[in-house]
Amino acid sequence: MPSTANIGQQEIPRPLENISLLAARNEKESVQIVLRPKVSWACSGIAGAIQMHCTDLCSSSGDRLAVGQSLTLRRVVPILGVPDALVPLDLPVSQINLLPGETTAIWLSVDVPPGQPPGQYEGVVSISALKRELGCTSQSMPKLEKSELYRELKSCLDSIDPVDRRTMDELVEREKYTTSVLRRILFSPMFHEFSSDNGSTEMMDEDALTNLSVLLKISVTVWDFTLPITPSLPAVIGISETVIEDRFRVEHGTDGWFDALDQHFRWLLHYRISPFFCRWGDSMRVLAYTCPWRADHPKSDEYYSNLRLAAYAVPYYPILSGSNSDAEKDSLRKEVEILKNKAHWGKAYFYLWDEPLNAEQYEVIRSMSREIRTYAPDARVLTTYYCGPSDVHYAPSTFEAFVKVPNLLRPHTQIFCTSEWVLGAREDLVKDITAELRPENGEEWWTYVCMGPTDPHPNLHLGMRGTQHRAVMWRVWKEGGTGFLYWGANCYEKATVPSAEIRFRRGLPPGDGVLFYPGEVFSSSHEPVASARLERLLSGLQDIEYLKLYSSRYGREGSIALLEKTGVYLGPERYAADHLPVDLMRAEIYHTCHS
Amino acid sequence: MPSTANIGQQEIPRPLENISLLAARNEKESVQIVLRPKVSWACSGIAGAIQMHCTDLCSSSGDRLAVGQSLTLRRVVPILGVPDALVPLDLPVSQINLLPGETTAIWLSVDVPPGQPPGQYEGVVSISALKRELGCTSQSMPKLEKSELYRELKSCLDSIDPVDRRTMDELVEREKYTTSVLRRILFSPMFHEFSSDNGSTEMMDEDALTNLSVLLKISVTVWDFTLPITPSLPAVIGISETVIEDRFRVEHGTDGWFDALDQHFRWLLHYRISPFFCRWGDSMRVLAYTCPWRADHPKSDEYYSNLRLAAYAVPYYPILSGSNSDAEKDSLRKEVEILKNKAHWGKAYFYLWDEPLNAEQYEVIRSMSREIRTYAPDARVLTTYYCGPSDVHYAPSTFEAFVKVPNLLRPHTQIFCTSEWVLGAREDLVKDITAELRPENGEEWWTYVCMGPTDPHPNLHLGMRGTQHRAVMWRVWKEGGTGFLYWGANCYEKATVPSAEIRFRRGLPPGDGVLFYPGEVFSSSHEPVASARLERLLSGLQDIEYLKLYSSRYGREGSIALLEKTGVYLGPERYAADHLPVDLMRAEIYHTCHS
Repeated sequence: MPSTANIGQQEIPRPLENISLLAARNEKESVQIVLRPKVSWACSGIAGAIQMHCTDLCSSSGDRLAVGQSLTLRRVVPILGVPDALVPLDLPVSQINLLPGETTAIWLSVDVPPGQPPGQYEGVVSISALKRELGCTSQSMPKLEKSELYRELKSCLDSIDPVDRRTMDELVEREKYTTSVLRRILFSPMFHEFSSDNGSTEMMDEDALTNLSVLLKISVTVWDFTLPITPSLPAVIGISETVIEDRFRVEHGTDGWFDALDQHFRWLLHYRISPFFCRWGDSMRVLAYTCPWRADHPKSDEYYSNLRLAAYAVPYYPILSGSNSDAEKDSLRKEVEILKNKAHWGKAYFYLWDEPLNAEQYEVIRSMSREIRTYAPDARVLTTYYCGPSDVHYAPSTFEAFVKVPNLLRPHTQIFCTSEWVLGAREDLVKDITAELRPENGEEWWTYVCMGPTDPHPNLHLGMRGTQHRAVMWRVWKEGGTGFLYWGANCYEKATVPSAEIRFRRGLPPGDGVLFYPGEVFSSSHEPVASARLERLLSGLQDIEYLKLYSSRYGREGSIALLEKTGVYLGPERYAADHLPVDLMRAEIYHTCHS
Repeated sequence: MPSTANIGQQEIPRPLENISLLAARNEKESVQIVLRPKVSWACSGIAGAIQMHCTDLCSSSGDRLAVGQSLTLRRVVPILGVPDALVPLDLPVSQINLLPGETTAIWLSVDVPPGQPPGQYEGVVSISALKRELGCTSQSMPKLEKSELYRELKSCLDSIDPVDRRTMDELVEREKYTTSVLRRILFSPMFHEFSSDNGSTEMMDEDALTNLSVLLKISVTVWDFTLPITPSLPAVIGISETVIEDRFRVEHGTDGWFDALDQHFRWLLHYRISPFFCRWGDSMRVLAYTCPWRADHPKSDEYYSNLRLAAYAVPYYPILSGSNSDAEKDSLRKEVEILKNKAHWGKAYFYLWDEPLNAEQYEVIRSMSREIRTYAPDARVLTTYYCGPSDVHYAPSTFEAFVKVPNLLRPHTQIFCTSEWVLGAREDLVKDITAELRPENGEEWWTYVCMGPTDPHPNLHLGMRGTQHRAVMWRVWKEGGTGFLYWGANCYEKATVPSAEIRFRRGLPPGDGVLFYPGEVFSSSHEPVASARLERLLSGLQDIEYLKLYSSRYGREGSIALLEKTGVYLGPERYAADHLPVDLMRAEIYHTCHS
């Protein structure tokens, strides 16, 4: 089943179909394998265990997509009853317990390296029922049995150790004893499986399997298009530093803290996301920064010049202290003066305040922006908003006040980042927003989603359709925004233990602000566990590159006509309900654009 | 949490409270232990494993309710996403894997033997987190490791076997070799846990546990009231013989077939149910029989005189053949003539047709009844119906036609068994039904539920509230029926493998006609797995005995006043939504009736 399907525990799987995927280089494509036991064959509480075995995907010219690297399997685990967390499985072989009357989904991803030769790659996933004994706990050697074995072998050793010269009879007697103990052990039921055959290791894995297997062929067409390493459209997403500090018990500024942030940064980069760390202050002041190290630290260049990063937030440190001492000003000035001369400075932005609501807050933004632009006149400030200042009457309606915000923030903001919620189903209002901007002066229009919009509009909440998650980026493309902001990827409720149960914050729709989970919740791994929603966001970001490729040949209008013709996206209330249109669109782009 | 709670996977458990139950002798009381991991402590995919350990319940005078016999634990497994199947856990110790973000319910039952001395019984369930290693598969000795061990020990044995007299040096050499192999094995990581300490077996179970444990005290007050072994109100419930034949592949009339039916009969008796096997024919002809053996077989008496049986169906064999040959008539006559002279004959009834709909079907019933009563004038015929014959106009309204059915079936039916669905919320219509009956001539009014009534009225469907299931019998008591019929306990969709997934029949509400599941679906056990709905039906049948006791002191009116005063049951749309009223009513009966 496709990656956009939400597969519940009662989903009835489709008949077996081989997997056929199309992927560009530097693209990740996913599909779901859905398993439901028709019968039970295990001993207690589970329907039975299966073994999944994946091979590498090979092309006829001998190139490979290696299992464990380019090919991964993850189990789809429900969160609040909704399939969402993608917990890695062991590779190339993993064992899964199926439950009676319950459907299990396995998320298979193919992540094509940028340098992969185009071609047809073939491989196989075999799914075999494991024999009854192996599903049972009785199969593993019980501790008691193991301790008994230890005791016997010990007594055997004690009887002949130390090896000293005694009489011949004594030696023979000792050997007889050793022989009898070893015989008893080797012919015990514990080793029954080996004593009856030749005990060859190669046979054994086969032995564990029943002859009930399902072979699933995977065929991946890698085509001669490489998604740009640097995303064409920046998707900037917040990572709460306080959530990390609390949960992983790392103190701000310690080595552990830098490590934890670094790990999060690197992990999210692979989702075509440009992360920023954030800490919230009074009102909606926000300290947003992409690199935890100062600009004069070697790490700074490593971060900012990373090709996967499309945009980065420069910290405006005084924001949280509220004060604006000379020392702090100086610190900011130094930071900006270092960065503004770098090649990556074009990716920089300042995100100072989230959703200003009144004249005073607008004035704070203007004043900070003035200061920043003193040091670097070409600095970009990003401001998120969904309305004008509530206490100033400068427009005849609320919507007009919202549309006219650029007049209040010019030249103190360059990136006008508005909530999709404001538009409702009125896509036509986009032109009212963009008409107010001056792209010739470097002004950009970005959008964001958070609590709103809600169903049926595209957003990333838990429980929405898979296409609804993916449609967030289709919407951005169609509306013509040049960037996207999402407030939080890890903003679950505070906890002080890494493995603590994930609870969403009260008052927010489930999943809002949470795109991945701590690995510790699901296993001993420290690697974050992606949500299906994050994977769909990535797919949407990849779709943008496909659409950009298409528009390079057929123009932006052509790409929008394609979105509409295939039924992928026509508007915030009219977009694909299932996966077919997505495949149609991608196939069309492949057919018209491959060389 | 109480036995009437439906505990979903997202249920938030209540704070820990010790368990306190009131139970009569020969009563089964249940409660649920709800577990949800706050953190994860295991290695892969599960939040962690716990061990539950149950002690016997002991009274101060040394009497016991033994774990595994009187005290059982079952895991509540969802069916179509609704908690329902109660799958037995190992006792006194069992291991359970908890899943992250998922709530698990354990169904604890105390089944008090009829001869149990009254008193206060105390025990403990301890719930301990198992150490990380034990939850992981790596803890069990991997097959590869085991095979390696076998190989090494084998080489060791081969080197000294046969023990023959060689030179002293050879013997010493061989011993040195044996010693080195054994040392290597014993000091390998495999036995690390034993070599570092003294390896005492007693320590090890303790070792496996973390110091994170929860102790749950159980206190059961067994009071000096014994529920009658023979239920005061017969609850006759069908078991489909064809479902058994198909699923367990037993051929009609073979030893395996008799065994399978016998097992089902015995198992259901413990639910205060009087089972009848059934096979359906054309229209709604039904062959219903409680004993698979003929009346002249020794098993017949064993079945019919079983004290747990409140009523039994005598087979009218010709029903399915359609013909009515002399041989068949003779066979029926012989059957009746044997039974009618037995002490248990008073429990006998004939169930010939389910819900006759037209004049022809009414006539068939009359004709069969005539034949039966030729052999035994005091034979009782049970007829289920929810309307009068559709093609005869003998009453001004549909309801009148329904109410007047006794006029059409007298004296050919003694047990007039009507659908609760007919009443809707109009409890007052009961008196119209009963006014037509002549109890002085042995006529009885029984009721049944099946597809109807539906929510919010009491029935046994999956997904209804727990109190809604239990209310089925409260309703019977309040309305004054003297028996209850339920059409099927195992009527799921046909399958030909015992462990096949359970599917409910199309067109029926989920759970309708299914009160238990084949054990093979959940484990290697052949014992049926009860549904929570069956347990709640049992609780309702036990409530009837409490109410009967109460009415023996305060009259039937008093018992109905009690139902209403405590809020347990006021009508088909007004009954307890949660468990508190049930506890209040039972406590009141205990306080007023115990000696």
